[in-house]
Amino acid sequence: ANSVLSSYSTTVFEVMSQLALEHDAINLGQGFPDEDGPEELRKIAADSLMEGPNQYPSMMGIPELRQAIAKHDKKFYGINLDWKTEVMVTSGATEALADCLFGLIEPGDEVVVLEPSYDCYIPLIKRAGGIPVTVQMSAPDWKLPIEELDEALTHDTKLIIINSPMNPTGKAFHWEELEALAELCLRYDIYAVCDEVYEHLIFDGRKHYPLITLPGMRDRTVRIGSAGKSFALTGWKIGYICGAPEVLAPIAKAHQFTTFTTPPNLQKAVAAGLSKDKSYFASMTKDLEAKRDYLAKALADIGFEVLPCDGTYFVTVDIRGVHNGRDEEFCRYITTEAKVAAIPVSVFYDMEGPSNLVRFCFSKRREVLEEAVSRLRKAL
Amino acid sequence: ANSVLSSYSTTVFEVMSQLALEHDAINLGQGFPDEDGPEELRKIAADSLMEGPNQYPSMMGIPELRQAIAKHDKKFYGINLDWKTEVMVTSGATEALADCLFGLIEPGDEVVVLEPSYDCYIPLIKRAGGIPVTVQMSAPDWKLPIEELDEALTHDTKLIIINSPMNPTGKAFHWEELEALAELCLRYDIYAVCDEVYEHLIFDGRKHYPLITLPGMRDRTVRIGSAGKSFALTGWKIGYICGAPEVLAPIAKAHQFTTFTTPPNLQKAVAAGLSKDKSYFASMTKDLEAKRDYLAKALADIGFEVLPCDGTYFVTVDIRGVHNGRDEEFCRYITTEAKVAAIPVSVFYDMEGPSNLVRFCFSKRREVLEEAVSRLRKAL
Ligand SMILES: CSCCC(=O)C(=O)O
Ligand SMILES: CSCCC(=O)C(=O)O
Repeated sequence: ANSVLSSYSTTVFEVMSQLALEHDAINLGQGFPDEDGPEELRKIAADSLMEGPNQYPSMMGIPELRQAIAKHDKKFYGINLDWKTEVMVTSGATEALADCLFGLIEPGDEVVVLEPSYDCYIPLIKRAGGIPVTVQMSAPDWKLPIEELDEALTHDTKLIIINSPMNPTGKAFHWEELEALAELCLRYDIYAVCDEVYEHLIFDGRKHYPLITLPGMRDRTVRIGSAGKSFALTGWKIGYICGAPEVLAPIAKAHQFTTFTTPPNLQKAVAAGLSKDKSYFASMTKDLEAKRDYLAKALADIGFEVLPCDGTYFVTVDIRGVHNGRDEEFCRYITTEAKVAAIPVSVFYDMEGPSNLVRFCFSKRREVLEEAVSRLRKAL
Repeated sequence: ANSVLSSYSTTVFEVMSQLALEHDAINLGQGFPDEDGPEELRKIAADSLMEGPNQYPSMMGIPELRQAIAKHDKKFYGINLDWKTEVMVTSGATEALADCLFGLIEPGDEVVVLEPSYDCYIPLIKRAGGIPVTVQMSAPDWKLPIEELDEALTHDTKLIIINSPMNPTGKAFHWEELEALAELCLRYDIYAVCDEVYEHLIFDGRKHYPLITLPGMRDRTVRIGSAGKSFALTGWKIGYICGAPEVLAPIAKAHQFTTFTTPPNLQKAVAAGLSKDKSYFASMTKDLEAKRDYLAKALADIGFEVLPCDGTYFVTVDIRGVHNGRDEEFCRYITTEAKVAAIPVSVFYDMEGPSNLVRFCFSKRREVLEEAVSRLRKAL
């Protein structure tokens, strides 16, 4: 068995979801909504299954979806993409990340990652032969640590992974932070792999800034998006990667040997979704923002210090006001006793990280959030 | 960019399919049927999209499908699988292969592959840090070269990949060949990764023998299946891996960081498909066998030497009776001039292989095959 992969346990999302199931707990752990995305999109996919074809589409994705992605990125961010050479569909954003890392990394390359980091980044870097170099961010503001990044970057650095809005912190980087970051990418001549799956889940009137739009970044950045997150259809596993032809080409080589293609019927529906106008996304965001507001306030009322949350499905709390002990122990406790599951933030660190932070997912129906809050209040 | 992946060009299936499209050629290259699989299955998937949930299922696959896979393997082959620990669903057989190779190979391990070999095997082995050791098989019988395998295997060998029924040769290994192979696997103490996606597409009353059923192989073999191939739904990208818990565990680690999950709605339909009785598969095979018979005879009539074909979607011909020149040149010629696309077999060799063999896909409607034959007859 491969020693890198074997050193990792089953992903915390699966473990906590199974534990929640066993204990009949409300699952505020793994990030997914409990209401499915637009019926209209599901109908397009269902009709396409019946009408066919149900055979291999082009390995880059169906033209209709690639065109819709290019138009979406033009409409929202002013990015001009050539859909034929600069857009590729993948079987979810996880595959997109794997493709980027296997396609770009040569064994021995250093890859810089911010921590806390989404759980697949570091295992994938290591399995691809890269050397992860981690830079820790600090609660509660999760400011981009430019000085520490400058120190971490070397001439052996191949790329940096940037996740904004960021899971698990809920941080969306500011324009000024991204400007400083872009300057570093140029100075050290590195690629940026941008996991922007929460691009549309950003609150308080904030705007999402794709790093690829910053000066000098167009040809060194790939941008990853996700239909699962943008349309509340996480089970569909439709992701995509946009970037300059020379950067996308080696990534496409990884894709062709990893999944090769993605169900054409689901792709067709996502194409329709991405063609929706801004008001659709704005209204989805508004709903989600109300859920965040509700859960953040309720958790504060229980006695947690609630950290700021600019976007994503997640709000993070400091548990010290309520509980003495590690985040992992606390999460097990509330799952089995309060019957509410959550994710300990320490799992998002390769080495030692803070053990006082816990992530709650708020993309659930209001009554579910209310019941979760009432259970937590009772148990704590 | 990664040097291993960058050294490969775009997969021949994509290249020939695009060339076929450009030249309005009948596509007998890439292997997929031109009639979609059972409406009944597509209806189950469509209904499930409408009813939901459309969110992440368990990373191992939905219980319903894992149970159906275990029952299927019991019914057809007498294999007793524990669906909870010995069955995993993947986003297609290509992902299944990638998971097996990334999960099992440690950099420096030797991996033995028979040639001609399906196009992703060797790039994946190399990208996983393994050292491919190829053993060539010989037309027209493609007998398993046990002596050469014995020479190729060493104590540094980690695993062997076996594809039966085999793409592109159409060879299904006989019981005696598999017995000799199993003996080698035991002697050298290696794993066998068995790509058996064409298990149900086997002709002339022949039976498919999963290598995992041979004495001593149960705990060292993983078996890969594909709904795309078993139900004529290649676009769905639902594959699966069965094997002992200790072998599957590291493979599951690769899966969790590669795609993590697969659309639950499509999984549900495949579960229904795998529960069909033997007569369903028998009738599908009979239809396909008639197509093979038709195309094989027609190609022989044109003047090709047609090689035996035990199974798969493919029949291979020796072009020397008809054409002086390499297979690749011939395939380009017939695609652009006769307007019929096919796949040159030399692409399935890492180093130099024969250049006189061409693979035709016969999983097409009868009238399409007839039109292809008439075009070839006219042009040649
Ligand atoms: C890939 S499953 C995890 C879903 C998710 O993004 C999260 O919970 O952080
Ligand atoms: C993964 S696309 C290729 C389909 C196929 O198996 C083949 O044509 O050999």
